[in-house]
Amino acid sequence: MFVVPLIERKRDGGALSPEEWSACIAEYTAGRLPDYQMAALLMAVVLRGLERQELAALTDAMLASGQRLSFESWTAARIDKHSTGGVGDKVSLVLAPLVAACGVAVPMMSGRGLGHTGGTLDKLEAIPGFRTGLSLAEAKAQVMKLGCALIGQTPEIAPADRRLYALRDVTGTVEAIPLIAASIMSKKLAEGLTGLVLDVKVGSGAFLPPVAQGLELAQTMIALGGDRGCPTVALLTAMDRPLGRACGNALETEEAILALRGEGPPDLMEVTYALGVEMLLAAGIETSTKKARKKLEAALSSGLAAEKFEQVIEAQGGNPKVVEDPSVLPQAEAVEVFLAPETGVVTRVDPRTIGRAVVALGGGRQQVDDVIDPTVGFVITVKPGDRVLEGEPIASVFAKDAGGVKLGFEALGQAIVIGDRLREKPLPLISHRVTTDGIEDLTRSPAGAV
Amino acid sequence: MFVVPLIERKRDGGALSPEEWSACIAEYTAGRLPDYQMAALLMAVVLRGLERQELAALTDAMLASGQRLSFESWTAARIDKHSTGGVGDKVSLVLAPLVAACGVAVPMMSGRGLGHTGGTLDKLEAIPGFRTGLSLAEAKAQVMKLGCALIGQTPEIAPADRRLYALRDVTGTVEAIPLIAASIMSKKLAEGLTGLVLDVKVGSGAFLPPVAQGLELAQTMIALGGDRGCPTVALLTAMDRPLGRACGNALETEEAILALRGEGPPDLMEVTYALGVEMLLAAGIETSTKKARKKLEAALSSGLAAEKFEQVIEAQGGNPKVVEDPSVLPQAEAVEVFLAPETGVVTRVDPRTIGRAVVALGGGRQQVDDVIDPTVGFVITVKPGDRVLEGEPIASVFAKDAGGVKLGFEALGQAIVIGDRLREKPLPLISHRVTTDGIEDLTRSPAGAV
Repeated sequence: MFVVPLIERKRDGGALSPEEWSACIAEYTAGRLPDYQMAALLMAVVLRGLERQELAALTDAMLASGQRLSFESWTAARIDKHSTGGVGDKVSLVLAPLVAACGVAVPMMSGRGLGHTGGTLDKLEAIPGFRTGLSLAEAKAQVMKLGCALIGQTPEIAPADRRLYALRDVTGTVEAIPLIAASIMSKKLAEGLTGLVLDVKVGSGAFLPPVAQGLELAQTMIALGGDRGCPTVALLTAMDRPLGRACGNALETEEAILALRGEGPPDLMEVTYALGVEMLLAAGIETSTKKARKKLEAALSSGLAAEKFEQVIEAQGGNPKVVEDPSVLPQAEAVEVFLAPETGVVTRVDPRTIGRAVVALGGGRQQVDDVIDPTVGFVITVKPGDRVLEGEPIASVFAKDAGGVKLGFEALGQAIVIGDRLREKPLPLISHRVTTDGIEDLTRSPAGAV
Repeated sequence: MFVVPLIERKRDGGALSPEEWSACIAEYTAGRLPDYQMAALLMAVVLRGLERQELAALTDAMLASGQRLSFESWTAARIDKHSTGGVGDKVSLVLAPLVAACGVAVPMMSGRGLGHTGGTLDKLEAIPGFRTGLSLAEAKAQVMKLGCALIGQTPEIAPADRRLYALRDVTGTVEAIPLIAASIMSKKLAEGLTGLVLDVKVGSGAFLPPVAQGLELAQTMIALGGDRGCPTVALLTAMDRPLGRACGNALETEEAILALRGEGPPDLMEVTYALGVEMLLAAGIETSTKKARKKLEAALSSGLAAEKFEQVIEAQGGNPKVVEDPSVLPQAEAVEVFLAPETGVVTRVDPRTIGRAVVALGGGRQQVDDVIDPTVGFVITVKPGDRVLEGEPIASVFAKDAGGVKLGFEALGQAIVIGDRLREKPLPLISHRVTTDGIEDLTRSPAGAV
């Protein structure tokens, strides 16, 4: 009952002390503070916010609820990238081996699909045999040996976040910047990193669409990371349309492999390189954007990045042949081409409609314990601004049967809007760079002209 | 899961439809909507408020969760009084038989002590044998026969309120005007009334101390009652000091009996008469304040009111001799007189300190299933503004042993502040009258000069 006055204080706009946050999270994790009291406290936080000190204390308490990767005296730079989630976002699968191939250790802990967005773990598990459930000890050994491990949030990492996340999901307390920041950072800080790069999605397909909210989330996480000895930098990237062409687990894994072989779509490559540059700079391996970019391009064109992915796949029990021959990925039963219904300009490719359709096709979960079908999804070859002719192929549906194809066609018909001209400018692919020094608007500098 | 979008809408400042409120309350009462979701929704309501239509729908849904007294074709005026709770507030025990003696039916449903405030049921149960747990059928028969029944909230009445109240108590969601209004009115509207008079307490000992909040609560409940065919009027009365002299269950019952015999303290009598006048006016038995007051005074001085209380006590299994001889009430083991520690003016008699001390002495509950000791409490014979001489008796402590007396003395020493002059004017005993026509400031009219 110690918590009632704390709930009342937060409700009335006051702050909890670090000790009070620590006690709340410890008691909640131990099952002694009931869900209904935590739900009331979380709703008060959503509406009243958290002071910087409170957010730090909450994050520390969530971090302290579990174990963390410790590399002790191993001084190699360890950098991870985290995306706030989007549709078609397979960047991690390209970026992790690419950066590891440049000599940076990447202990990457990813999540599963959530709502309309896909999850890196689900994409990796499309590879036959791939095991994401490594223990912390296994992950550490692999990072020290190969420079990269691609794992899921183990039960030992931030268990408080696991319980809180499940509660937030059913109590309307997901969309709150401090709670999102604490959830992400409590997991990332458990990875034993020396630096972190964030990909904060903005636009209609992001969890927090407005650019202003994306900037606030970025700044909140950067402050949290910096204060806790993990220098953090963020890029804001566009999620008003899917990233790349493929949406769906195996399809995205295939696109990632093509990207590692130098055949990735331009938007996917630009975002991957931009984040990779930040990771190399954070690692201190390069000191200029230009040199970092060249190093990444060389690692890709030389085949080193693809080779690194093969090593990681093999180490984690997957079939490494997939990199040479993506057809070892599971294939959809029914594939049909979608034709442009009219001549004109593509004004919109709505990411939420596409993301939800992937889930509806069986490629995501409606309930926590749903088994997903890795083969389903879309490949959409047009972007907003492209001119199309009636009858021209602009997308494909991958489904398990004719009913799925029908559903997919309906979704494409709704998501891809064709008009006489582009009414609204698509968001810049990479719009802002956020560091502890402030916000850099990349659309006003040559670097952003992509 | 239908409720998550509703929680989100309320969180974002939107409104729920009547059907949505009805579904939430029905599912919650049926145990299908879990406490944690209701807690999040309640916190959002505390911080975002309820629109008038929403409050009406919530109240109706809570009312509809249970049964209600129905007097069918019985056309007699049925008026109840409800107080928002205070310290030393034994008005109900005097008022119900007094008004019933004037020919108004009073089906009064009361509560137990809550926090630092006492409860009418606990006071009644100090009378040996008194049974407050009548069924609705028993209560109805007694009201039709005697014109008065004094009962507790039966399990059939607004069960949703019962569950919601318990949840609010442990989730920091008590202090919200719409939730307080819905809780009170869902129970009162179940009494089958033709009118309702509210005693809204203001000042430091009230649940909502500021006058502005008291006025808002009064207006909210008046609108709710009026819209649902139960004309409602409210008086704002002072709770910056205890009402009357006695605080503690048997002590207050004794003071109420003395009041019915014409020996009540002036402040208790004024509040009782003022509320009684409103009840007679609401019943249409008198048409002017003056005549109504005279009728009440006559019912008291003639002994009819005391006789009515005897009848009610007898009908509900209590020992009716208590009215003639209050010493049949249980008596405290240890009684000690408290002397003024210095000469000066009483500047404060803090009601919360006194109320909490009654609970600490065993006269209230710290936990729901605590058994209370009806004998303990205080009689405080001074009011703010009174001059006192050092060593003069100003109060008595009633306890079960010497330890209790010590505790009581400490509380009195803290609660009764003596200074050189009154620094802050006590609140007017009866400050405002609130009706659907608006707010009448009684301190600017002769009626308020009490």
